[in-house]
Amino acid sequence: MKILIINGPNINLTGNREPGIYGSVTLEDINGMIAKRAAQAGAECEFFQSNSEGALIDFIQSRMGEADGIILNAGAYTHYSYALRDCVASCKIPVIEVHMSNIASREEFRHKSVIAPVCVGQIAGFAYKSYLLALEYFLL
Amino acid sequence: MKILIINGPNINLTGNREPGIYGSVTLEDINGMIAKRAAQAGAECEFFQSNSEGALIDFIQSRMGEADGIILNAGAYTHYSYALRDCVASCKIPVIEVHMSNIASREEFRHKSVIAPVCVGQIAGFAYKSYLLALEYFLL
Amino acid sequence: MKILIINGPNINLTGNREPGIYGSVTLEDINGMIAKRAAQAGAECEFFQSNSEGALIDFIQSRMGEADGIILNAGAYTHYSYALRDCVASCKIPVIEVHMSNIASREEFRHKSVIAPVCVGQIAGFAYKSYLLALEYFLL
Amino acid sequence: MKILIINGPNINLTGNREPGIYGSVTLEDINGMIAKRAAQAGAECEFFQSNSEGALIDFIQSRMGEADGIILNAGAYTHYSYALRDCVASCKIPVIEVHMSNIASREEFRHKSVIAPVCVGQIAGFAYKSYLLALEYFLL
Amino acid sequence: MKILIINGPNINLTGNREPGIYGSVTLEDINGMIAKRAAQAGAECEFFQSNSEGALIDFIQSRMGEADGIILNAGAYTHYSYALRDCVASCKIPVIEVHMSNIASREEFRHKSVIAPVCVGQIAGFAYKSYLLALEYFLL
Amino acid sequence: MKILIINGPNINLTGNREPGIYGSVTLEDINGMIAKRAAQAGAECEFFQSNSEGALIDFIQSRMGEADGIILNAGAYTHYSYALRDCVASCKIPVIEVHMSNIASREEFRHKSVIAPVCVGQIAGFAYKSYLLALEYFLL
Amino acid sequence: MKILIINGPNINLTGNREPGIYGSVTLEDINGMIAKRAAQAGAECEFFQSNSEGALIDFIQSRMGEADGIILNAGAYTHYSYALRDCVASCKIPVIEVHMSNIASREEFRHKSVIAPVCVGQIAGFAYKSYLLALEYFLL
Amino acid sequence: MKILIINGPNINLTGNREPGIYGSVTLEDINGMIAKRAAQAGAECEFFQSNSEGALIDFIQSRMGEADGIILNAGAYTHYSYALRDCVASCKIPVIEVHMSNIASREEFRHKSVIAPVCVGQIAGFAYKSYLLALEYFLL
Amino acid sequence: MKILIINGPNINLTGNREPGIYGSVTLEDINGMIAKRAAQAGAECEFFQSNSEGALIDFIQSRMGEADGIILNAGAYTHYSYALRDCVASCKIPVIEVHMSNIASREEFRHKSVIAPVCVGQIAGFAYKSYLLALEYFLL
Amino acid sequence: MKILIINGPNINLTGNREPGIYGSVTLEDINGMIAKRAAQAGAECEFFQSNSEGALIDFIQSRMGEADGIILNAGAYTHYSYALRDCVASCKIPVIEVHMSNIASREEFRHKSVIAPVCVGQIAGFAYKSYLLALEYFLL
Amino acid sequence: MKILIINGPNINLTGNREPGIYGSVTLEDINGMIAKRAAQAGAECEFFQSNSEGALIDFIQSRMGEADGIILNAGAYTHYSYALRDCVASCKIPVIEVHMSNIASREEFRHKSVIAPVCVGQIAGFAYKSYLLALEYFLL
Amino acid sequence: MKILIINGPNINLTGNREPGIYGSVTLEDINGMIAKRAAQAGAECEFFQSNSEGALIDFIQSRMGEADGIILNAGAYTHYSYALRDCVASCKIPVIEVHMSNIASREEFRHKSVIAPVCVGQIAGFAYKSYLLALEYFLL
Repeated sequence: MKILIINGPNINLTGNREPGIYGSVTLEDINGMIAKRAAQAGAECEFFQSNSEGALIDFIQSRMGEADGIILNAGAYTHYSYALRDCVASCKIPVIEVHMSNIASREEFRHKSVIAPVCVGQIAGFAYKSYLLALEYFLL
Repeated sequence: MKILIINGPNINLTGNREPGIYGSVTLEDINGMIAKRAAQAGAECEFFQSNSEGALIDFIQSRMGEADGIILNAGAYTHYSYALRDCVASCKIPVIEVHMSNIASREEFRHKSVIAPVCVGQIAGFAYKSYLLALEYFLL
Repeated sequence: MKILIINGPNINLTGNREPGIYGSVTLEDINGMIAKRAAQAGAECEFFQSNSEGALIDFIQSRMGEADGIILNAGAYTHYSYALRDCVASCKIPVIEVHMSNIASREEFRHKSVIAPVCVGQIAGFAYKSYLLALEYFLL
Repeated sequence: MKILIINGPNINLTGNREPGIYGSVTLEDINGMIAKRAAQAGAECEFFQSNSEGALIDFIQSRMGEADGIILNAGAYTHYSYALRDCVASCKIPVIEVHMSNIASREEFRHKSVIAPVCVGQIAGFAYKSYLLALEYFLL
Repeated sequence: MKILIINGPNINLTGNREPGIYGSVTLEDINGMIAKRAAQAGAECEFFQSNSEGALIDFIQSRMGEADGIILNAGAYTHYSYALRDCVASCKIPVIEVHMSNIASREEFRHKSVIAPVCVGQIAGFAYKSYLLALEYFLL
Repeated sequence: MKILIINGPNINLTGNREPGIYGSVTLEDINGMIAKRAAQAGAECEFFQSNSEGALIDFIQSRMGEADGIILNAGAYTHYSYALRDCVASCKIPVIEVHMSNIASREEFRHKSVIAPVCVGQIAGFAYKSYLLALEYFLL
Repeated sequence: MKILIINGPNINLTGNREPGIYGSVTLEDINGMIAKRAAQAGAECEFFQSNSEGALIDFIQSRMGEADGIILNAGAYTHYSYALRDCVASCKIPVIEVHMSNIASREEFRHKSVIAPVCVGQIAGFAYKSYLLALEYFLL
Repeated sequence: MKILIINGPNINLTGNREPGIYGSVTLEDINGMIAKRAAQAGAECEFFQSNSEGALIDFIQSRMGEADGIILNAGAYTHYSYALRDCVASCKIPVIEVHMSNIASREEFRHKSVIAPVCVGQIAGFAYKSYLLALEYFLL
Repeated sequence: MKILIINGPNINLTGNREPGIYGSVTLEDINGMIAKRAAQAGAECEFFQSNSEGALIDFIQSRMGEADGIILNAGAYTHYSYALRDCVASCKIPVIEVHMSNIASREEFRHKSVIAPVCVGQIAGFAYKSYLLALEYFLL
Repeated sequence: MKILIINGPNINLTGNREPGIYGSVTLEDINGMIAKRAAQAGAECEFFQSNSEGALIDFIQSRMGEADGIILNAGAYTHYSYALRDCVASCKIPVIEVHMSNIASREEFRHKSVIAPVCVGQIAGFAYKSYLLALEYFLL
Repeated sequence: MKILIINGPNINLTGNREPGIYGSVTLEDINGMIAKRAAQAGAECEFFQSNSEGALIDFIQSRMGEADGIILNAGAYTHYSYALRDCVASCKIPVIEVHMSNIASREEFRHKSVIAPVCVGQIAGFAYKSYLLALEYFLL
Repeated sequence: MKILIINGPNINLTGNREPGIYGSVTLEDINGMIAKRAAQAGAECEFFQSNSEGALIDFIQSRMGEADGIILNAGAYTHYSYALRDCVASCKIPVIEVHMSNIASREEFRHKSVIAPVCVGQIAGFAYKSYLLALEYFLL
């Protein structure tokens, strides 16, 4: 089983950026925890982060047929990237949308995800644990 | 550690009701799985289901100070019960909102949760596993 | 053939309450007329009224598999009770929504029914005769 | 007693057109059933169908003072013909709006009737029986 | 003169719940102050609180013809309970809507009351004194 | 100078229809007054009324190049006939929109005219005098 | 008969200001034409212009009981001065709203008049002749 | 203790203006009652009324540091004067918004107050008693 | 192969009407070009134009079963004729919606087509060539 | 070169009013800095502040033809004074809209300026420096 | 004559992706057909596809002055890329927007194109033939 | 002191692109003027332009901790790039949003900036001088 962990714009700043909302754990820390848990369960992980909408789409397209699941935190693209939505809808890999913060309690524009309707489901609000719970779903 | 698993209106029909959306597993089956996993981890569970908004509020109020976490599937009340929201906001117990279906891909009125903004987070779209992932959060 | 006649909040006041809109016939009078017509046609009736959303849902759930049709005047719940809607959608009994007044000519908030989309149809504006016409449909 | 049965645009195609929604009974069949039931009750019927908004208005104006009731299926004009609405409002004959399909469960634009507020009431969702129930109201 | 003081969902938590918004005075304390002031003026009071929309309606219906005024804090039901609104509109007792907090300065959804249009008036923002001022109106 | 006086749907009922709003003067009376005033001023009038949107457009097109002004009461078409609007916009004759009632104080849907933006101006609210004032403009 | 001609903000600039929209005739010119026509008909005129919402209200209140009609061009206050609207509604003098330009063909915000619903009627689009036609109404 | 009683546009007409809504008591009568009750309680009152938004702001600014409370009926400015709102927000005197009528049951535009969010609270619907109840709050 | 070329209201004025938007080619010219191109390809054409919504529907209904394709420029009916939409949806002939102008760059109301969702596709913005490209589609 | 510095409602309180938003510098201080910088550059300044919409319009009209530029902080009038907008549009002097606070990050109603579309440009968010930068533009 | 054929995000998946909507023809197939038809007509083609908004803009800018027409299928960027719109508006090459599917009959968000207003026109709904028809326009 | 001057999509075309709106000065000219003024004041400048949203974010992230201020003209991304907004919000460098045109007087979609709420302020409408004024702020 191979799982892709894909992070969108500004998630690479996690840990330095607004710790009140995202915690002080860095993206590297999170990826380490994911890799460790996956290894225990005999699953393979590949990590990707980009600030570019096009690069995120390129990456997902390039892994079609190779991966069994995607954990996607699309950052702010969550709220307007219909291009990413189309990519998710056509990539034929089950995708889980995750958010570290509880997007329902933040600014109005973060309440709507244009990608969620074409995902398996959403997990939001559990800081770095959102990723781990998503992983757990694929391992269940 | 004591976790409350609270289900709202029509969730008691799970299994007979629209299996395409909710699966054929019954609420009893789900509660059994939750209880089993909680027992493994040494946690206690209490289960409650009601079709009545007032009864759901009464139950939550009655457990203030006694529980460490709530897994809440408020059913259709998710979308308009500000009374339940106020209850969640003031009960001082961390609450996770769960949905078996991916509410973002269903009817427009199900896209908005009035309760989510006062919860820790949301888990939606993983059928009965939504409950298990929520439990996992409290056990992590 | 068994038909349920279910009335929601404040319909029990019919006759004393705003006669200009609802007429001076009481709910008891209406139920009497329905029972009489049903008896003529050899059909059985059961009557239920409650001001509580939860109790209305409980009642419908309790009659699943026992009734052949429901005549439902959900009163003000018509306009916001998605919980009742879900119940109607999953109860597997054909439901007709009735209103004594012409809801299209009253306050804006009464123009939309959240329950109608999951009913067989709607009959509105004929005072107590709305119930009788709905019954006639089941008898046709 | 004289009842007008007036049908608007495309209703003449009933039976050939989208049978899943409207059934396979033709408009002629329906008019036959109406005429038969009316005859039993000693009532007279006149039938009119047109695809033209103006012709529908002309017809209603021409029958002012001669008819005791109108059963009106305005087809798609239901949703935007304020001209027809004004005609109904000023014709001084009680009008019942009927629809064969349950307009509340179809496209968004069909949820609103601009004519209903000036009618006695509405009957929708009972296929050809919608007409018969409307007739029944006048005969009660 | 008999005045009903009716409180809706979660108001029973007043004093423990978000003191910044509602103050630390409990509902019991408030009822005590109301009772004392009413007694001075020779008026009788009856107190009722429920988290259930249906129970609030049942209670108001049960007191029709017996009370001279109602002081109603409908809590979150204020913002969506058209059933309660219909009850207030038809109970024939003058009703004053009260709120302890200034609802105009809180969340958007609290700005609109669906009940206020059928009340005598509204008093909001004076903490427990909102009830006392409402009482004063009936005593003036 | 030749002026066309064009009336849309249901205006032919003026005088029998809702006299509180439109007065009891008939369309014939109004046309008589217009003709008389025009004659005094040496202007020619042609009168046309139709309930049909298409017929109104046909008539205007047929008079292109022959008339110096149009007084148009488009009735309910005022509020949605973009076809009539296009006709007015392309007929190259100055058009004045008139209404007997004050449309700004009636139903919401009557507040907006889709034709007015392509007219010279609007005169509304003066009963039959609205036509006379419009005529006066052409005579000034 | 005494008619008040009241002009609101920036109308005093008429003639220097955007002649394409308002023409090059000055307010003084217009008032002269109105006075002349009124004199012919034996009517008295009083003219008032102010850029201040309060001053316009003060003036109207000061003439209650003294005037038989008001011709009001409220300028931009037309679109938001509910205070002026309340004044017009309570002054018990018939008011005609006039505009020199065709407000329906200008910016969106000019399409709605908050004052028109409480006026007798509206005349818009005829440059200075809008005033003269309004006067004509009072003289008819 | 010094209380300012400030009334906005058209409130000076109270008593002559639409008595069905505002009662027949004049502003002078109301001020007399307020002054009397304040005197009993040893409080000082100052009264101000203006139709001008700017004058109302000038007055409030001029009393900063001198008054202990403001009872403000801003009339129609309630619904759009953000300038008055800013003044209230920065004047550092507690302000109570009062209305004689129940604004929630009147025209749509009166349902929203732009000033209320920066006031202590609102009292609406009790005719002249709205002022007296507001005064009572300051005296409690 | 038989193709219907159907034009709605005011399209008959093409060439005289607003040449900046529609060009100076007349409808007759356009029809000539279409006929010529069709003839080359061995296809038959029938041309119809009407200003009447009902007549357009009548014509389409009358050709059901006889034509292989429709090129429809519904003029302004494009934006509100749900009756024409229903006709297109039920006529079982593939329909292409064409516009000579680029409707997306004109007035807001022209941006939405209520007919397009039930057509094969849309071609807009190429002046008379829009028709020729649509024809080409049927010939491909 | 003569520059007018015009401030609207409540700006005179700058320094005492909500220093977190506007800083503790007074309007007098700001005007001093502007005057000093202008003097250095050989430009003349005139200062005006009023809480009255009408007075602001009167002032601008009175300076037409005398000034070379206007720096306008219209305070809350920014968001609804179409009268002031009309004045700016017709005064033929280039106007710069300034705000001390970043209006885009404050309450929703402050996000829209009805005056900005007729100004040269906007400068917002730089506290008292907003005025100085605007002055700099005229001096460049 | 040189024509650019530019495709946006996910169009490279055409043929594998949701064949029910886009057909099973690949982008390579389509480009082949375009190239063939262009060659017949003596026109030159250049093909470009990218998932990146910026790369699409870069490409168009790089071809300014070199190309005679652009056929643009911007994929999901159609609905929100104002940056691409600005690029199209300023590139001075005529652009035709094409879509393989009928975007008017798909999800709500696909109904609006932000790019279309600055294009020559739109062709949508003809699968791969949409491109060929666009090419035909340039060849006509 | 180091200032970054960052320009978004299509700004590189400044000078060739729509000179009526943006002037004929090129981006190179503008950067030259900025560099010259900065040098006078002893400040360092770095210039960056990209059509890619991701590249703009990458650049800002790469300069965190190295720059003292950012002058950002995000072009069309201003109106929808929440990713850029998040980047600005977390980069801890003060950012000024600039626009050469007066965005408030252009298309509706340009009226809203999603980035402005997290900037220090905005300067818009002064052609190339917008940049110079922003620079002046950092130099003050």
